[in-house]
Amino acid sequence: MKFDDHSIAALPQRYRANLINSLPGYKPAVLVGTADQARATNLAIISSAFHLGSQPPLIGMIIRPDSAEGPHHTLRNLLDTGCYTLNSVDEQLIPRAHQTSARFAREQSEFDHCGIDAQWRENFNAPFVRDAAIQIGCELRQHQYLDINRTHLIIGEIVTLEIEDHAIREDGSVDLVALGMACVTGLDSYHTVKEGVRLAYAKSNHAAQLA
Amino acid sequence: MKFDDHSIAALPQRYRANLINSLPGYKPAVLVGTADQARATNLAIISSAFHLGSQPPLIGMIIRPDSAEGPHHTLRNLLDTGCYTLNSVDEQLIPRAHQTSARFAREQSEFDHCGIDAQWRENFNAPFVRDAAIQIGCELRQHQYLDINRTHLIIGEIVTLEIEDHAIREDGSVDLVALGMACVTGLDSYHTVKEGVRLAYAKSNHAAQLA
Repeated sequence: MKFDDHSIAALPQRYRANLINSLPGYKPAVLVGTADQARATNLAIISSAFHLGSQPPLIGMIIRPDSAEGPHHTLRNLLDTGCYTLNSVDEQLIPRAHQTSARFAREQSEFDHCGIDAQWRENFNAPFVRDAAIQIGCELRQHQYLDINRTHLIIGEIVTLEIEDHAIREDGSVDLVALGMACVTGLDSYHTVKEGVRLAYAKSNHAAQLA
Repeated sequence: MKFDDHSIAALPQRYRANLINSLPGYKPAVLVGTADQARATNLAIISSAFHLGSQPPLIGMIIRPDSAEGPHHTLRNLLDTGCYTLNSVDEQLIPRAHQTSARFAREQSEFDHCGIDAQWRENFNAPFVRDAAIQIGCELRQHQYLDINRTHLIIGEIVTLEIEDHAIREDGSVDLVALGMACVTGLDSYHTVKEGVRLAYAKSNHAAQLA
């Protein structure tokens, strides 16, 4: 099927959302944990996290537009406290993680209502997901409102990180498949992933000539 | 294993790159096609593409820092022409797609050197990957240099899109698994994905009371 900008704009809203959210491919399933100043917790699933750099260790994510009820609770909390957690989602956690996308009132915690245990660490003002095999604590480094579609770009630096020992290979890479980690397609599909192939660092003949 | 900001900073560079690139999870494999004003083509694999919004249809991506040899060819081309393509990578294409990450000279095209066929469309000044089941043509809408780690945020609007018919479901979502699409973990691992589950739109009791 072929589309252009006019035919995309003319699509029914839900069809367009399904289509465009399916591009450009697989997305990571991540739970974002935050708290307000009184330590009331919030947990939200996102699929927009992306690697930004490893030195310093930075992860970016997109937070959706503010709703009529006011700013997204996650956004409000992380701007207030300057920190948040990113927690991996495995096969067991998928149904409960998805449930965090329901609309809860400000005073309701998704941890309680979705049956997910919170875990606090010393000197960190956002809650982790206890059962997550990968727990990342981020300090907010940059917040930017993107005028183009009223979303928010959030950039955080990893300041604390805990990963199940057996999943870290000798070279530092993490075996996400062994951990049963989930990815997302479109708006609402969750998948596990097959064993992969590791390919050698790519070299061109040109580079060989330079060396 | 536990890490904090100090222990992460103290890691050997390659170990740290492997570790941090493995977070936060699965990444899409996408080939970015560009051309210069003379239609000399360039093709680069990225794993940093992310959904930004569906109305307008926007995709973001991160381009790595400029090298000593000057700006990344992809970046230079897309800034010059204002357009680029995003092309899906399936299992068959993985080895050739990975090879585009080798360092080629400015005058060398990764299409030629990696055995990937280019396809041109009328009125679009960037080349598509002929064999890609999903071909996305983007016009550059925003380019932003991110001071924090000298990367570039690129936001494009989808202005042309072609997808194999059988992969689009009635509701507009795309069956990436049926297309054999690949995802990336860490720096160098490529995976295919298992059939997933689709979960219903999540509702809270709170929302039910509001309705």
